[in-house]
Amino acid sequence: MTTEIFVNKKAPYVCTPLTGKTKVEILEQLDKILPQKPDLIEWRADFLTDLADVELVLGLVQEIKGKTDIPLLFTIRAEHEGGEKITLTEEDKVSLISEVCKQTDVDFVDYETSNEDKYVKTLRDISKENNKQLILSYHNFKVTPDNDEIIERARQAEAYGADIAKFAVMPNSKEDVLRLLEVTKTIDDMLEVPVVTMSMGDLGGLSRIVGWAYGSIITFGVGVELSAPGQIPVKKLREAIQLTQELVPSWE
Amino acid sequence: MTTEIFVNKKAPYVCTPLTGKTKVEILEQLDKILPQKPDLIEWRADFLTDLADVELVLGLVQEIKGKTDIPLLFTIRAEHEGGEKITLTEEDKVSLISEVCKQTDVDFVDYETSNEDKYVKTLRDISKENNKQLILSYHNFKVTPDNDEIIERARQAEAYGADIAKFAVMPNSKEDVLRLLEVTKTIDDMLEVPVVTMSMGDLGGLSRIVGWAYGSIITFGVGVELSAPGQIPVKKLREAIQLTQELVPSWE
Repeated sequence: MTTEIFVNKKAPYVCTPLTGKTKVEILEQLDKILPQKPDLIEWRADFLTDLADVELVLGLVQEIKGKTDIPLLFTIRAEHEGGEKITLTEEDKVSLISEVCKQTDVDFVDYETSNEDKYVKTLRDISKENNKQLILSYHNFKVTPDNDEIIERARQAEAYGADIAKFAVMPNSKEDVLRLLEVTKTIDDMLEVPVVTMSMGDLGGLSRIVGWAYGSIITFGVGVELSAPGQIPVKKLREAIQLTQELVPSWE
Repeated sequence: MTTEIFVNKKAPYVCTPLTGKTKVEILEQLDKILPQKPDLIEWRADFLTDLADVELVLGLVQEIKGKTDIPLLFTIRAEHEGGEKITLTEEDKVSLISEVCKQTDVDFVDYETSNEDKYVKTLRDISKENNKQLILSYHNFKVTPDNDEIIERARQAEAYGADIAKFAVMPNSKEDVLRLLEVTKTIDDMLEVPVVTMSMGDLGGLSRIVGWAYGSIITFGVGVELSAPGQIPVKKLREAIQLTQELVPSWE
């Protein structure tokens, strides 16, 4: 499915976040991001002050889609997984994501696997009915969990029918960065669901550059502002990926 | 000790091999290599057709040293560790390396840890007496041995009093490349002896670019001709190292 959206492009797809607090800020960021030609734009809607204004949100999704052919990912990152504090209840949040699926041309929506089972299933159903792809994600800003735990979470995402399983974890050593790459390959070899992983923070930078070689299909780069620690500017990220792909041909 | 030779330079040091069969070929390669400003030049003397001609070898070391301030490493790679076929007996070989230590301004000599104990000790003594650094090396063109075996060989090199312990091994999977980086860090944390490691072949390219972050102080790049599979051109290698060092600041 992923390949239908990223037409004629090869992984890794570079994703750039929009993190504005207001419509004006978001559209300004978009203007700066578009010339950098990311492969995917993630609107981190949890940064929006007026997230409770459904019409504003739906209208802004369409406005972004109207300005570019680049696929759009809509995310309200949960506070317990590193997102901004929002006023919506979980029920409101699920309802808003559902409306985005139903009433807009968004391409992807993201939801955390750690949320209540009924909500994950609802969003899987609604996203599928409306031909939107669902990224089921997991974030850990403290540690890189054991390989078994990461693999189990990937299995769970696949069982839910995720289109992509995403893991953003924090390394506490250089060894953790290698381990995350290793487990990425394990998941990629073991499961059908496409996987996206990153080792965050300064220490994890390598994973953003070479994760593709271990099976991670998306890497996040900074367009205007970071949405997570350790993100690299898009231009540098592309350069580094291109150089490693050129130098390590058998890894493609 | 190493830092005395690589004045004002930071690891990883880029080493470029000379692989000519004749004096003329070697000097031609040197002319092409010098503008690329490697941090270290390795003369792989096992490629020389007239290796039995001691005066030729000693004279050529001095001629190379006369043309540049770049430190020089003299290596007669053993056939059983991937070197060229030579006519010298092991005794002749040890004698030749000894003369290079005594009669020339070479900076480093290399010898395999797998050779007979008495020869390794002889070369350690003679190199030390003549203020030359000794790289004790291990090569495996088939596999990446178990971590324990690599660590044990590093301990052995340290016990011999090596100035540098070098490991060039072949990966059979992407996981092997990660494992080599991991074991490099283990050795770097555990032992005093500076370590140089590389995962060879196309698959291992990543280790040549990011090995520095895991403690490997030298990386081999192609000046004119490869001396081992997977070597990357010096210019590209430097670019990739610079870019990863810039993008992953906490790794320096």
